[in-house]
Amino acid sequence: MSTVIKGGTIVTADRTYESDVLVEGGRIAAIGPNLSGDTVVDAEGAFVMPGGIDPHTHLEMPFMGTTAAETWASGTYAALSGGTTMVVDFVIPARTDGGLLDALAAWEEKATRQACSDYSYHMCVTGWSQTVFDEMEQIVARGINTFKHFMAYKGALMVNDDEMFASFQRCAALGALPLVHAENGDIVAALQKKFMDAGVTGPEGHAYSRPPEVEGEATNRAIMIADAAGVPVYIVHTSSEQAHEAIRRARQKGMRVYGEPLVQHLTLDETEYFNRDWDYAARRVMSPPFRDKSHQDSLWAGLSAGSLQVVATDHCAFTTEQKRFGLKGFPAIPNGTGGLEDRMPVLWTKGVKTGRITMNEFVAVTSTNIAKILNVYPRKGAIEVGADADVVVWDPDKSKTISAATQRSIIDYNVFEGFEVTGLPRYTLSRGEIVFADGKNDAPRPGRGQFVPRKPFGAVNKALSVWKDITAPRMIERKPEYMPIGV
Amino acid sequence: MSTVIKGGTIVTADRTYESDVLVEGGRIAAIGPNLSGDTVVDAEGAFVMPGGIDPHTHLEMPFMGTTAAETWASGTYAALSGGTTMVVDFVIPARTDGGLLDALAAWEEKATRQACSDYSYHMCVTGWSQTVFDEMEQIVARGINTFKHFMAYKGALMVNDDEMFASFQRCAALGALPLVHAENGDIVAALQKKFMDAGVTGPEGHAYSRPPEVEGEATNRAIMIADAAGVPVYIVHTSSEQAHEAIRRARQKGMRVYGEPLVQHLTLDETEYFNRDWDYAARRVMSPPFRDKSHQDSLWAGLSAGSLQVVATDHCAFTTEQKRFGLKGFPAIPNGTGGLEDRMPVLWTKGVKTGRITMNEFVAVTSTNIAKILNVYPRKGAIEVGADADVVVWDPDKSKTISAATQRSIIDYNVFEGFEVTGLPRYTLSRGEIVFADGKNDAPRPGRGQFVPRKPFGAVNKALSVWKDITAPRMIERKPEYMPIGV
Amino acid sequence: MSTVIKGGTIVTADRTYESDVLVEGGRIAAIGPNLSGDTVVDAEGAFVMPGGIDPHTHLEMPFMGTTAAETWASGTYAALSGGTTMVVDFVIPARTDGGLLDALAAWEEKATRQACSDYSYHMCVTGWSQTVFDEMEQIVARGINTFKHFMAYKGALMVNDDEMFASFQRCAALGALPLVHAENGDIVAALQKKFMDAGVTGPEGHAYSRPPEVEGEATNRAIMIADAAGVPVYIVHTSSEQAHEAIRRARQKGMRVYGEPLVQHLTLDETEYFNRDWDYAARRVMSPPFRDKSHQDSLWAGLSAGSLQVVATDHCAFTTEQKRFGLKGFPAIPNGTGGLEDRMPVLWTKGVKTGRITMNEFVAVTSTNIAKILNVYPRKGAIEVGADADVVVWDPDKSKTISAATQRSIIDYNVFEGFEVTGLPRYTLSRGEIVFADGKNDAPRPGRGQFVPRKPFGAVNKALSVWKDITAPRMIERKPEYMPIGV
Amino acid sequence: MSTVIKGGTIVTADRTYESDVLVEGGRIAAIGPNLSGDTVVDAEGAFVMPGGIDPHTHLEMPFMGTTAAETWASGTYAALSGGTTMVVDFVIPARTDGGLLDALAAWEEKATRQACSDYSYHMCVTGWSQTVFDEMEQIVARGINTFKHFMAYKGALMVNDDEMFASFQRCAALGALPLVHAENGDIVAALQKKFMDAGVTGPEGHAYSRPPEVEGEATNRAIMIADAAGVPVYIVHTSSEQAHEAIRRARQKGMRVYGEPLVQHLTLDETEYFNRDWDYAARRVMSPPFRDKSHQDSLWAGLSAGSLQVVATDHCAFTTEQKRFGLKGFPAIPNGTGGLEDRMPVLWTKGVKTGRITMNEFVAVTSTNIAKILNVYPRKGAIEVGADADVVVWDPDKSKTISAATQRSIIDYNVFEGFEVTGLPRYTLSRGEIVFADGKNDAPRPGRGQFVPRKPFGAVNKALSVWKDITAPRMIERKPEYMPIGV
Repeated sequence: MSTVIKGGTIVTADRTYESDVLVEGGRIAAIGPNLSGDTVVDAEGAFVMPGGIDPHTHLEMPFMGTTAAETWASGTYAALSGGTTMVVDFVIPARTDGGLLDALAAWEEKATRQACSDYSYHMCVTGWSQTVFDEMEQIVARGINTFKHFMAYKGALMVNDDEMFASFQRCAALGALPLVHAENGDIVAALQKKFMDAGVTGPEGHAYSRPPEVEGEATNRAIMIADAAGVPVYIVHTSSEQAHEAIRRARQKGMRVYGEPLVQHLTLDETEYFNRDWDYAARRVMSPPFRDKSHQDSLWAGLSAGSLQVVATDHCAFTTEQKRFGLKGFPAIPNGTGGLEDRMPVLWTKGVKTGRITMNEFVAVTSTNIAKILNVYPRKGAIEVGADADVVVWDPDKSKTISAATQRSIIDYNVFEGFEVTGLPRYTLSRGEIVFADGKNDAPRPGRGQFVPRKPFGAVNKALSVWKDITAPRMIERKPEYMPIGV
Repeated sequence: MSTVIKGGTIVTADRTYESDVLVEGGRIAAIGPNLSGDTVVDAEGAFVMPGGIDPHTHLEMPFMGTTAAETWASGTYAALSGGTTMVVDFVIPARTDGGLLDALAAWEEKATRQACSDYSYHMCVTGWSQTVFDEMEQIVARGINTFKHFMAYKGALMVNDDEMFASFQRCAALGALPLVHAENGDIVAALQKKFMDAGVTGPEGHAYSRPPEVEGEATNRAIMIADAAGVPVYIVHTSSEQAHEAIRRARQKGMRVYGEPLVQHLTLDETEYFNRDWDYAARRVMSPPFRDKSHQDSLWAGLSAGSLQVVATDHCAFTTEQKRFGLKGFPAIPNGTGGLEDRMPVLWTKGVKTGRITMNEFVAVTSTNIAKILNVYPRKGAIEVGADADVVVWDPDKSKTISAATQRSIIDYNVFEGFEVTGLPRYTLSRGEIVFADGKNDAPRPGRGQFVPRKPFGAVNKALSVWKDITAPRMIERKPEYMPIGV
Repeated sequence: MSTVIKGGTIVTADRTYESDVLVEGGRIAAIGPNLSGDTVVDAEGAFVMPGGIDPHTHLEMPFMGTTAAETWASGTYAALSGGTTMVVDFVIPARTDGGLLDALAAWEEKATRQACSDYSYHMCVTGWSQTVFDEMEQIVARGINTFKHFMAYKGALMVNDDEMFASFQRCAALGALPLVHAENGDIVAALQKKFMDAGVTGPEGHAYSRPPEVEGEATNRAIMIADAAGVPVYIVHTSSEQAHEAIRRARQKGMRVYGEPLVQHLTLDETEYFNRDWDYAARRVMSPPFRDKSHQDSLWAGLSAGSLQVVATDHCAFTTEQKRFGLKGFPAIPNGTGGLEDRMPVLWTKGVKTGRITMNEFVAVTSTNIAKILNVYPRKGAIEVGADADVVVWDPDKSKTISAATQRSIIDYNVFEGFEVTGLPRYTLSRGEIVFADGKNDAPRPGRGQFVPRKPFGAVNKALSVWKDITAPRMIERKPEYMPIGV
Repeated sequence: MSTVIKGGTIVTADRTYESDVLVEGGRIAAIGPNLSGDTVVDAEGAFVMPGGIDPHTHLEMPFMGTTAAETWASGTYAALSGGTTMVVDFVIPARTDGGLLDALAAWEEKATRQACSDYSYHMCVTGWSQTVFDEMEQIVARGINTFKHFMAYKGALMVNDDEMFASFQRCAALGALPLVHAENGDIVAALQKKFMDAGVTGPEGHAYSRPPEVEGEATNRAIMIADAAGVPVYIVHTSSEQAHEAIRRARQKGMRVYGEPLVQHLTLDETEYFNRDWDYAARRVMSPPFRDKSHQDSLWAGLSAGSLQVVATDHCAFTTEQKRFGLKGFPAIPNGTGGLEDRMPVLWTKGVKTGRITMNEFVAVTSTNIAKILNVYPRKGAIEVGADADVVVWDPDKSKTISAATQRSIIDYNVFEGFEVTGLPRYTLSRGEIVFADGKNDAPRPGRGQFVPRKPFGAVNKALSVWKDITAPRMIERKPEYMPIGV
């Protein structure tokens, strides 16, 4: 059984050209003119692009006393309907002194049954011990080459600097890439208390207690620690000029640092928290919070300049009911918003149609760059012969108004409610299977998604390791006559 | 007649993988395992990479009262022997008020007969007039989408700010890319006079009279003018942190600016000009001059960070006899050095083997990035089916000591004399033809090289144009009652 | 006849303390408790500060086909009423090849008869010739140690880079300080034409045609040229982050650069030009134009950080009738606004009362810093024994609403119309004479003001000169055996 | 009994002028020409400057298992002989949960008996508790308005981020200024272990384990925390471009941050640690360590640009015997070097005589600026009537070669050994008493020095407090109808 995507214009991170695409056995079998296959996918007037990869999701995440309502089934379906064909979810150990393998098993239990799209995992390191040290190697052996560290959520997920340094050194040795949630958890906790004490209990207090400087500081610190450990580092949800500045400054010294703005931070701002409707504001609570509008220019420029590489969502969706856990005080509002379904249309509308980024850059930041960073390119993130046929047929003329009423996500609201988007998937293929065809009844089967293992020791890890060896400090040889007598 | 490159590891800007490459009709016909062909090129233990592109050469350039001694025949042969399969040379009109087409004809006369490798042209704009305005469109129609502007060489090639702005606006309208030699020619001229008056007549005066600030200033100015004109801009031979800083600063505002360090500036420093041997020092005279060693870290970091995109040579080679035109005063020393033959081995040795850049980044900065910038990708700069089979089979274990005594270039010296390099071409193919096979008698035929036309309106030009339209100033509508009486 | 200022709190750039001030013979004779004198000035509850110095005025300036309507008499009276006791006006030669002394005579003619406050001059260099070179020395001998250069106003006042470099070198030799109006005149002229051609003829076109990048570029260029010439440089009316960034970057390399924001740019923004009322908008036309609000934070931070040193006004006031010269096109609107009368109250209200700057910093940026830069400290800018008794008794509780209806300036509007200010002069003393006492009939006598000569070779000039000598390039000594044969 | 300083040129932070100075009762009684007094101090050909203030000393400090060998008596004598008339020493509590008052008593015990010069204290906060919170107010009441925090020395003096934030908020409330030793103690400890494990046990390991990035990071973090707390912050011993960059970046946002380079870091570099002689290297061990020479330009530029304000010494002097405690491993080498005696001559020689800074800037950074920052100006740091007569008569022509053999310090070596300095005190006066007259037998009496109390709520604290109030986050008022039902 073969499928041919006909009549479209292929858009990759590198180039734009007209060609058909033949899919066989779940992979791209041929790219060229006049191809034919058993099934024909009409791509006339459309762009044929690598399916999106969202490297930052928290599906059914147990967090802050509840569990994110978006399930693996609903979340990955929503993703596919928006052109995203792979998600990478964060596995969180239940303990801080180990339990990485147990946590992985728990995640696998959920994902295997439900996932509609392909997926992979990042492992979280939430504490340090010999067990963690040992388990990290086994995790890498299981195809997970990324370890996440939280500098915030004090008393819960947060690690301190020497734990982080230990873990980063371990990552260096294993050829893995550390990821970091960069906010100074000590200061956030103190500011939360300060604003609560001052009676600022509403969602706006969330924004006040996590100012951009707190993110910039932690970003800067994480980078220093990674540099000392001789390992690249990836900063998740880079939301502010302050964080971006720290990343730029490091890169300009040759440090290997990546930054990931979210589509929310690119398009929404902190005035959302000042909404008179408590529910409205609380639904937008996530960390880092939306920022003053002036930060958006910085993030967009980072995407075109290459100082930021990836657009993600941090999809961690709670219902309004769950959000109301924080009615008595914003620190108890579960942190997280959705976005999986809307990332690509919103980015296209606000980015490509305005000329801020090219179509090729759109592909790069939604798919190809992260595939390279995660060392899974070109299996994912590419329209190349041999690659998995994760493809979105993108109709640049299709429009809709985003609304919770019509979304696939099971959440009862949408932070992009009312956004007019132009540019939407006509079809989405996952390993060659048509998993989304707009307007038709084609919900993908839960459980069809597959785990995508990723190898350690990517090219950048290796190069950095060589450079760090060459430039390592040298011992001074001192002859006895230059040492104090009697030593 | 087909050729197969067997047993190698393909290295592109994106990835590294083992595969054979089949070449037919001058193009890559297939990439995969176990390919066979009429001729077999042994790539065992070697990397198979896109042939290098040097976008900055001046072969047989009439300049400063003489003509660069490196011919199209010798230069392109030297290029091929070093893994570079395409050069882009600068066409310089004889007049400042037009003559672009005449100059192109003169260049074609030389190139067509002699070129061993493929080639393309940049057109220089050295003055402004209605004729220049008109001819630019014809030049674009001839497949040239880049126009070079000199901010230095006062009284000769230099254009002033309003000429540059006029030309940049014309580039914007034509979908072309302006290039800039960025040094403040007024200040250079004044400093040359100052040092000559002070009796500093030797080659060191060349460095003194062109300090990095003078380059940084002009770079900054060119960028501002390009931004005002709504066009991307490419800064040739970015040699200093000052210039690089200006580029970074612009990119971080979303401006579309490219920077091109030369392999010389990455590896040689200004102490060369302080050599006691006048000839030694004079042979290194080029503009911008080599810099204090501290600038090198900045340039290398730019390559890995992506703020600089291309490594070129500005190959403009004069003999020692020609250099001696400036014995009585450094301003008369013909400006230029060689490098075409050594660019790739030197960059590999100092960059890849040290871990400063990855192999993929090596391919990006020597070939793929400039192919994209010049809108000729993936015909050039790619190992892809359908691409021109411009391929270098790179032996990472092959070593040599660079020496004028053994080089293909016809110049009597080499600025890299004595450099030990590891990593050299085993074979170079140009459109499928084996034009270099080390140790064998296979000098390519002069005249075999072909002109490579390039289309205007690349993706970045188009996106920037959209953005500039959206953000263009809006007129304020004033009703009569808001206007002064009687108007 | 002595005067004692009693019961106040002295505020200087350095400190704040309670003390009386005794004035005799136009100078401060004593500072201490319990002083007595013939006349008593009540300073109870008030701050006793050095009178303001506005180093940037154009009184009765012939410009753009008309003459600024504010006269030396009205302007200096307005100044005194606002606490400013000295102005420095720009002398503009009628020719570009000399005539500096003639111009000085013309300015003296106006000032001597009319000035109510003390004053000094900057001399403009609007072209270059042997005559200019020679006259500069005579100008310095006449007590003028500052030379202004326009990088804008193409075809009129503008000088190009080599003229500027020549003049800067001359300043270095004479121990003088160059000042620069930094906007790229070529680009401004081209943009003016572009917007006029596009039908954008209203005052908003003024803002569009002089974007901040155009100012940043010229600032950067002026600094480079000053550095090459080995002379400090002072950038007048620094209005944008771009210009400020260039200044900061230079200072952080040890370069000696000063920046002068205007009170207008600190408090007004470009939306003024979008006013529906043509007259309203045109009255705000000055160069550089008011900027987007985001620039204001940069300027304020510069004042507290010390990267910007002086707050001036560029008082160059035209009537509404004069502004209407540009009804058919904004380029013909005479450039300039008022501010002399309101500088100190507005800065106090927006700066000191908000906590952005301290009272001491207020004194520094309105008076003391510029006195030092102009090498006239502590005769001016100080509350010290022996200093000229130019003193303002500042009532921090006094309020008013700024209005053209009540101002001393003879202009028919005020760009600060409607500003509520708190903090106003109770008394102003000029060389001990009470020239302003609010609410009383005490208009000062035109012609009472005196010229304040200023010596060259300030401390910074001298230090920079030493450093430039020490770090000057050295010639390489080459023995005959290292030179080519036969030379 | 009066003293007159005759025939000299007064140099202050503001200006340079010829005048005599009359001293009575320990204070400056008059400044003017032709003064006379009982005792005449000859200042012919000399500069009369405010005595130096070294705000960073550790005399007889108990540290790392020993006690700094420099006593209050010897240290303050050394200071006076080098032109420094006041030191500010760090009081270190013996416990982390309080004991501030006890520690103060212990310090007073030592200082009162021995001090030859005037002195004041900073109090260290090495932990957090209600007791510390309470005692801080009492410490302020005792005339100490500065609190020091160590981000390094893990397990000993180090505080973590929430302790620091708590203390900074307390400082804000008390009108005090927090000081910070900025190095990331976690990473330093981990790197120390890493290098020791790798067998790098010599003094060079000290430098390797405290790279500039580790200082830059902590500086950046301290600034963020101060900003969140709404308090100015002073970074002690700013030694690197990284730390300086963080300071600059903050200042350019209007944050109130001060930086204090040491004279050692301005003039010595890390190659000192690579000396073949272990003793030589170990004697230079201090934190932060000396840096790569490239950092020096940054620090010097900071002094002239005003982004760094103070030059100190961190005088904490151990004998060679004490240094040898670390023979088995660099972490045990007592941290600290001397400098009190040489700070001013070395800075004059390397700074003023080269033209890097002016004489006035010399006075500013050695005396006046810190007097202002510590809120003790103009009692100290000024040549003004009424100020303490702490005066140095500086002979710019006097030279010597620095040597441990001839120094007043009782340490057996000197890190500036062999430095040729030109510019030395001819006389030093402390509150009018001639405490140093070169070549004569005039050692000052131990115990003659007095404690200098300092008031809280300096001008910058107050202004920042106003600004923070104005810009504080505002609560969103939500009416019941905008709140979820039932709440």
